[in-house]
Amino acid sequence: MDKKQAVSRAVISRLPRYYRYVSILRDKGVQRVSSRAIAESLGLTASQIRQDFNCFGGFGQQGYGYQVEKLYQGLAEILGLNRERTAILVGAGNLGRALLKNFDFVGSGFRMLYAFDADKTVVGCAFSGIRIRDVSEMYDFVSLHKPDLAVLTLSPEHAPEIARRLIDCGIKGLWNFTGDDIYLENTDVPIENMHFSDNLMTLCYQINELDDSE
Amino acid sequence: MDKKQAVSRAVISRLPRYYRYVSILRDKGVQRVSSRAIAESLGLTASQIRQDFNCFGGFGQQGYGYQVEKLYQGLAEILGLNRERTAILVGAGNLGRALLKNFDFVGSGFRMLYAFDADKTVVGCAFSGIRIRDVSEMYDFVSLHKPDLAVLTLSPEHAPEIARRLIDCGIKGLWNFTGDDIYLENTDVPIENMHFSDNLMTLCYQINELDDSE
Repeated sequence: MDKKQAVSRAVISRLPRYYRYVSILRDKGVQRVSSRAIAESLGLTASQIRQDFNCFGGFGQQGYGYQVEKLYQGLAEILGLNRERTAILVGAGNLGRALLKNFDFVGSGFRMLYAFDADKTVVGCAFSGIRIRDVSEMYDFVSLHKPDLAVLTLSPEHAPEIARRLIDCGIKGLWNFTGDDIYLENTDVPIENMHFSDNLMTLCYQINELDDSE
Repeated sequence: MDKKQAVSRAVISRLPRYYRYVSILRDKGVQRVSSRAIAESLGLTASQIRQDFNCFGGFGQQGYGYQVEKLYQGLAEILGLNRERTAILVGAGNLGRALLKNFDFVGSGFRMLYAFDADKTVVGCAFSGIRIRDVSEMYDFVSLHKPDLAVLTLSPEHAPEIARRLIDCGIKGLWNFTGDDIYLENTDVPIENMHFSDNLMTLCYQINELDDSE
């Protein structure tokens, strides 16, 4: 496979969807899939699929389709899902707990080490085997153990300041659920700002559109 | 403004990002913005922005930029955010409570009416003023009061069956947080399947890419 380079953000953002789709095919025991079938399932065009895959040296022979297993392994490798990255979670309120209990971090490439919270009544508790530690220990922990990712499920007020300190301690990526975007200057550490509202507004549009067409 | 029709899913999915960006400008008191400035902030091209806005009759004069207030109102109208849609939430576990407590439903076009849960120990409780009712009352409630949206924050096992019944009772849209996609046949009710993992995998890719380039 060719070395990836200068792959656009738009292509990267489609890779997880490809991976998710191919995972389902693989679970079903499907052996081969055409770019056309992928395109139809994901609302894209076949040429877009081929173009995207070509950024990574392609994955199959033209006109013959892709081997599902090879595609699955290739996408996992590109995404780096098998590299045993580690994570911490900051803020063990309802959202933090929901993620600890239900979200498959390992399936997305990360092993969760600990959660941190300021609330003394939850420190020492564990959710799905992940123990909650006192937030006062967090920066020392990060400096020493160098987890790759911090999941921010705290309230937004102090999030930018905490994000900055985490990066100074060596955090390599931030997954931000606080609801407010975090933009930090002078860092190339990637930050994914989650926007639930975008999806809900899209839904609002679709509901209105259907109602208006009746 | 021209009547919208046959606007592609890709355009629709960008509208909330435009709205969010313009809301921030508006809060800052900015009066005008160029398609170029919008494009740079959102990682798109200026011609894409103009093309997207033209789907809805444009919003300004070429070369003169857009009036922020007009753009804000126009996008809100297109998205249908001021139409007082109503919602219920199904499953008041950690994720459900996190949404009830922290998520601005009204800002995304929906007034939350009630949450429903099977757990008798939480029925009667309220979060941010939203009361939790017994799930056994849910279908009658939906049939009678016709809320527009159901937010699915329950576990995935029974979600497709519950989604089907809600649609039969008149629900017009589903916002699915169960982690498993819901596909229902013979319905045009829109379903937004939330995939946290897509964002985390994107982040995994970016972390690996930065690491490899060092």
